[in-house]
Amino acid sequence: MTRPSLGEFDLINRCFRSGFPISHDTLTGIGDDASVVRPAVDHTLVQSLDTQVADVHFPAQAPADLIAQRALRCAVSDLAAMGATAQGFFLGLTLPKGETISGITRINWLDAFASGLRDAAHQSGIALLGGDTTSGQQLVISCMVQGWVPGNESALLRSGAQPGDEVWVSGPIGRGALALPLVLKNPAYSQGFAQQYYFPEPRLQLGQALRGIATAAMDISDGLIQDAGHIARASQVSIQLRGEAIPTAVGLGHPEWPTCLTGGDDYELLFTAPASRHSDIEALARRLSLTSSCIGVCLAVADQNPENTQSPPQNTVELLLEDRPLSLIQTGFQHF
Amino acid sequence: MTRPSLGEFDLINRCFRSGFPISHDTLTGIGDDASVVRPAVDHTLVQSLDTQVADVHFPAQAPADLIAQRALRCAVSDLAAMGATAQGFFLGLTLPKGETISGITRINWLDAFASGLRDAAHQSGIALLGGDTTSGQQLVISCMVQGWVPGNESALLRSGAQPGDEVWVSGPIGRGALALPLVLKNPAYSQGFAQQYYFPEPRLQLGQALRGIATAAMDISDGLIQDAGHIARASQVSIQLRGEAIPTAVGLGHPEWPTCLTGGDDYELLFTAPASRHSDIEALARRLSLTSSCIGVCLAVADQNPENTQSPPQNTVELLLEDRPLSLIQTGFQHF
Repeated sequence: MTRPSLGEFDLINRCFRSGFPISHDTLTGIGDDASVVRPAVDHTLVQSLDTQVADVHFPAQAPADLIAQRALRCAVSDLAAMGATAQGFFLGLTLPKGETISGITRINWLDAFASGLRDAAHQSGIALLGGDTTSGQQLVISCMVQGWVPGNESALLRSGAQPGDEVWVSGPIGRGALALPLVLKNPAYSQGFAQQYYFPEPRLQLGQALRGIATAAMDISDGLIQDAGHIARASQVSIQLRGEAIPTAVGLGHPEWPTCLTGGDDYELLFTAPASRHSDIEALARRLSLTSSCIGVCLAVADQNPENTQSPPQNTVELLLEDRPLSLIQTGFQHF
Repeated sequence: MTRPSLGEFDLINRCFRSGFPISHDTLTGIGDDASVVRPAVDHTLVQSLDTQVADVHFPAQAPADLIAQRALRCAVSDLAAMGATAQGFFLGLTLPKGETISGITRINWLDAFASGLRDAAHQSGIALLGGDTTSGQQLVISCMVQGWVPGNESALLRSGAQPGDEVWVSGPIGRGALALPLVLKNPAYSQGFAQQYYFPEPRLQLGQALRGIATAAMDISDGLIQDAGHIARASQVSIQLRGEAIPTAVGLGHPEWPTCLTGGDDYELLFTAPASRHSDIEALARRLSLTSSCIGVCLAVADQNPENTQSPPQNTVELLLEDRPLSLIQTGFQHF
């Protein structure tokens, strides 16, 4: 059982000590036993931990800066989904043992990783507060991200959707899922759909603006249908989605259209809001240059037609196409 | 690239959703995109992330409950070193793939892990706020722990030691290091010194009581000599330790005595305080039933004798034995 050599401590210092956004409420950052943060008066603290494992959540052979970008952006997306502002993060980085990582020296790999991490951190304005670097059999990245919500407002939870609320998605979905075969074939490819895969955009501004408007929200990481089910169950409603209204990376007739609805890795926000806020949300989306779409409605669980034997179990999601329930088994949806 | 099956989600829910201490300032816990905590008025937030990798930081074959105990206790120790009260933690758990872990079913292994984690959490009164469970090639555990320090007091940093301050250790050191060959031979052995290895005691009460008394503090994880160097450098002092005053698991003449001073894994607190607080600290240690010892003194860097060619570099640590510098190379200390 070995610990990193002193040379690696120096390297980690060089990579992670500077160049990140400054957090003015941080009294003590990296370098002591722990960091010390002074909370803003009357704010609540929103926190989430996200772990990504090489060849499970990203290709191990992907460029280090892209791996870092994706890891931090995916984690920060949870703050966006809560309507929080980003404040700081902790990095748990387990590096594979050996002289090289993905064919380049450890130093060069770590430099590239840190560079991508810094860029992603600046994109969200999130400070690096601390972390731990270790060695193991494979690359594992844990990002614990945190942010604030003003005390007179509530964070956006999954559990507040009401029957009658409209269901929205913040932008087109499916690009992350359609990119997956491309990045598996060529992990360095980061154009087109693969840009969404490596550089998902945490919808922080939208999330913050939705406080007081949205009744429930989450980010789409496991796929629209499955994630809509999470809101339905948490809110004890059923959700009816209109397939033709869902903005997707490829059109309705395309063979990959179902993949857009069930595939993950998009990190757009899925949220619900009273129909009375419809025009407010449209205006908000325009202001933020987002192509947000109203894609469905929340129903009371009792509203479901008991004679419709093809309807999904209570408290979950029904997909309609031109007002007719889509036979999910026939269309090859795997997640049902 | 695969995600955990739904069955595993259920299992994780069963293991980690209940049985942990309740944190009354937590508004939203496990189950949403993020947790929400309402900070106590005018407190500062102390946070640390600690990663442990199988066969690097603990034997992979150790019983799951012992692995969990050690992982959380080591992490919480950083809160003790800052003088914080423990509030909550996030768990990043990467499980090795396969039907079994260390020869038992995943379900049984995870049950045992969660059981040890719950026990350790109750020992420190720390709530489980969230986390992420993934699968990979080997077991990796990241614990992000956090706690509070009242706003009118300062967290204990490494950087406040002054020349003339006394140096203290909260209890005997070396048991963790001496246990290492034993637990490598028999990972299930948790008696004697191995008890210190698997159940290090975060010195939370001592750390909290030392606020306003200690000028610098840290927990001994990398070994006394190396960790004293961290305080010396952060405080820009040199530290002179009296070998005969250091409480060790084995006596001065024992061949393993040097191991006690340089080996890690103890998690006792190392701290400095003005000599005027000597009796206060003795009384405090008695009250907490700790065998804390004054083991040295902080010196101004200029106090070092420039003619002593065997003295270590400036801003670091000198070990004396009966007032004579110990020739560290001759005594086989590896960390110098």
